[in-house]
Amino acid sequence: MNDYIFTLEIAVRDYELDSEGIVNNANYLHYLEHTRHAFCRHAGYSFAQMQADGFTPVVSRIEVDYKSPLRSGDVALSRLWVEARGARFIFHQHLYNQATGALAVAAVVTIVCIEDGRLGRGEQLRQAFAQWL
Amino acid sequence: MNDYIFTLEIAVRDYELDSEGIVNNANYLHYLEHTRHAFCRHAGYSFAQMQADGFTPVVSRIEVDYKSPLRSGDVALSRLWVEARGARFIFHQHLYNQATGALAVAAVVTIVCIEDGRLGRGEQLRQAFAQWL
Amino acid sequence: MNDYIFTLEIAVRDYELDSEGIVNNANYLHYLEHTRHAFCRHAGYSFAQMQADGFTPVVSRIEVDYKSPLRSGDVALSRLWVEARGARFIFHQHLYNQATGALAVAAVVTIVCIEDGRLGRGEQLRQAFAQWL
Amino acid sequence: MNDYIFTLEIAVRDYELDSEGIVNNANYLHYLEHTRHAFCRHAGYSFAQMQADGFTPVVSRIEVDYKSPLRSGDVALSRLWVEARGARFIFHQHLYNQATGALAVAAVVTIVCIEDGRLGRGEQLRQAFAQWL
Repeated sequence: MNDYIFTLEIAVRDYELDSEGIVNNANYLHYLEHTRHAFCRHAGYSFAQMQADGFTPVVSRIEVDYKSPLRSGDVALSRLWVEARGARFIFHQHLYNQATGALAVAAVVTIVCIEDGRLGRGEQLRQAFAQWL
Repeated sequence: MNDYIFTLEIAVRDYELDSEGIVNNANYLHYLEHTRHAFCRHAGYSFAQMQADGFTPVVSRIEVDYKSPLRSGDVALSRLWVEARGARFIFHQHLYNQATGALAVAAVVTIVCIEDGRLGRGEQLRQAFAQWL
Repeated sequence: MNDYIFTLEIAVRDYELDSEGIVNNANYLHYLEHTRHAFCRHAGYSFAQMQADGFTPVVSRIEVDYKSPLRSGDVALSRLWVEARGARFIFHQHLYNQATGALAVAAVVTIVCIEDGRLGRGEQLRQAFAQWL
Repeated sequence: MNDYIFTLEIAVRDYELDSEGIVNNANYLHYLEHTRHAFCRHAGYSFAQMQADGFTPVVSRIEVDYKSPLRSGDVALSRLWVEARGARFIFHQHLYNQATGALAVAAVVTIVCIEDGRLGRGEQLRQAFAQWL
């Protein structure tokens, strides 16, 4: 089902906690974005390079299920796989608590590509991700 | 359709922009949370009071459609309405660009209530929100 | 002593708290930056316009004394005055708890100006701030 | 001079950049705090344990010199040493660009300890840090 193609370890930082002592809901989106960007670098096409090319992937939709909270001292295993649907790229992303194996967050993130200011076909990403699509 | 019951003005802060000059996708969740908390205070039951009562609303699911980006100098009108479904509260939240009227973000946020460490019925919230349910 | 020339109200947002229930030390720098940028817009020269002009003010040094913490529900009065010293601009910034009048944070922030990639004289800022220097 | 006793690698995350493409000034304080907390865990006394003990270190003053910006793709070596002065702990912290060796940020951070709601002597920290003081 989930044939992950990339994993990043992310240690919880205490400033990411809110006053309940759990990672704030918005910060998981930071983890997810950081993982996608690390994957793009791994795929040979860094976000900085994309920007230099006038090519900007943007998030168009995100669905996140919060399953169990991460806390101080926890390390997340952030895993993803990706599929192309027309001009969109769908990232399936999961964060697991490394120590317990529990699923913390499950997300589906839809990316579209802005090229020269307009919605584009994302050919560069399709090429960079070719071996995984 | 959208019978908004609460509106908060939120001015974009420049540190919320990312390197593309648009508000980073995670920061919209901050706007949404801040609006919900302001609404709870407006409803007479502040988040701080909830915590003091051992009552913790947590986000269990979020769906966000990113329609048009907010930029430096923009002010968002952050609007919401809420419904109760069993033990869950569903917030329907929209961010509009105040100057243009354009929809920036549409979100559906599901909240569940942790009471004394367990999933609860959320009776306190149901009472606080009674006139809007 | 402190002849403030600008004041901005900033309501604490709950996600800015850390697990102790007080605003995290880094977030005060966000408040300070947001206040400086609002002041620049008030002075007729927005940060976005500076960037469009290839003119980038950057923080070169910051000294912050944390006097009393801000908490959930607090509103800060964020006040500043500015002086020019050679090519540097020194912002004197204070955050007060609106309800109690207590000083929360006192900061001295040194700004230098990058023009076309090199350290510049900051003439544009000097002109924008002329009436207050 | 700088006899560092702890080093942490911190990879820049793209959401930490601001619209100029450099790490926002406030985010370096996040790096510095995360390093101190990692050091405390390394010293056998985690921040979570401190909180459980009713013992809260808080930042009372920070001085930061911003020397050269970190950018997308950079990795920081975050190094520190600590000294005790009366009831205060002074952390000397430096962030280096791993690839170039350039100093990015130099900071002096003063910590005081709140014990049962009042300013304390910080004996627990003094013991935890004994071998390095």
